[in-house]
Amino acid sequence: MESRITIITLGVTDFQRSYHFYTELGFKTDAKPTDHIAFFKTSGTVLAIYPLDKLAEDISPDISIEKSAFSGITLAHNVKQKNDVNAVLIQAQEAGGRIVKPAQDAFWGGYHGYFSDPDGYFWEVAYFDQFKYDENGNLVL
Amino acid sequence: MESRITIITLGVTDFQRSYHFYTELGFKTDAKPTDHIAFFKTSGTVLAIYPLDKLAEDISPDISIEKSAFSGITLAHNVKQKNDVNAVLIQAQEAGGRIVKPAQDAFWGGYHGYFSDPDGYFWEVAYFDQFKYDENGNLVL
Repeated sequence: MESRITIITLGVTDFQRSYHFYTELGFKTDAKPTDHIAFFKTSGTVLAIYPLDKLAEDISPDISIEKSAFSGITLAHNVKQKNDVNAVLIQAQEAGGRIVKPAQDAFWGGYHGYFSDPDGYFWEVAYFDQFKYDENGNLVL
Repeated sequence: MESRITIITLGVTDFQRSYHFYTELGFKTDAKPTDHIAFFKTSGTVLAIYPLDKLAEDISPDISIEKSAFSGITLAHNVKQKNDVNAVLIQAQEAGGRIVKPAQDAFWGGYHGYFSDPDGYFWEVAYFDQFKYDENGNLVL
């Protein structure tokens, strides 16, 4: 196995709602709101949205689609300027998300906040001057 | 917001178990099994593991750490050869994962299967000759 994640797929309960949420945040896709799956271009891994019940069905007939409040997974969006943290949180709220943790100092030395998308998936928006990024904004380890 | 996911963090219930699982699958990290967080190098988005309770706490004190069987999120690992699908599934099983869907034809024209990691997070392993990849193996949309 090569160390690569090609696609992250979020199972969504209202496809058009999620489509508009992510396109309003600036994610680009060739899909239409009436399609059944949308692949969003990102630098690196592709983000996809797909109906939750169909995603569960694709894995196995035994997968329950009941979700708890916390999926156990977070997606992080790191920004280049400290002020961008709050700006992105507000943008997410205006697009139909919810600010779960307002912009604040993080215990690990950075500055961050969290928003949830319409299905309750959590995105961390973070600024950390000790991280290095490549020309595409991806984290360099 | 730029269309970028910097980090995917999986909240894990046994850090050392997950550390060994992902390092056995070939994911590289500078972290030690006794650390509190591990960032794995990938082409594009970084994969991280972090204790589930601490991840929930980092989002908000209101987040319950009870997880259902399905997080609602899948991670896809696309391979370049059809035979690699089964090979990766077997590798994941040998590293302590579970094959949830054996390698088979997919309804969308490709060939795929699923494994779950020690915390039940689902990875799709897929081959599709209609997808294009860049030199790092990332999907080109």
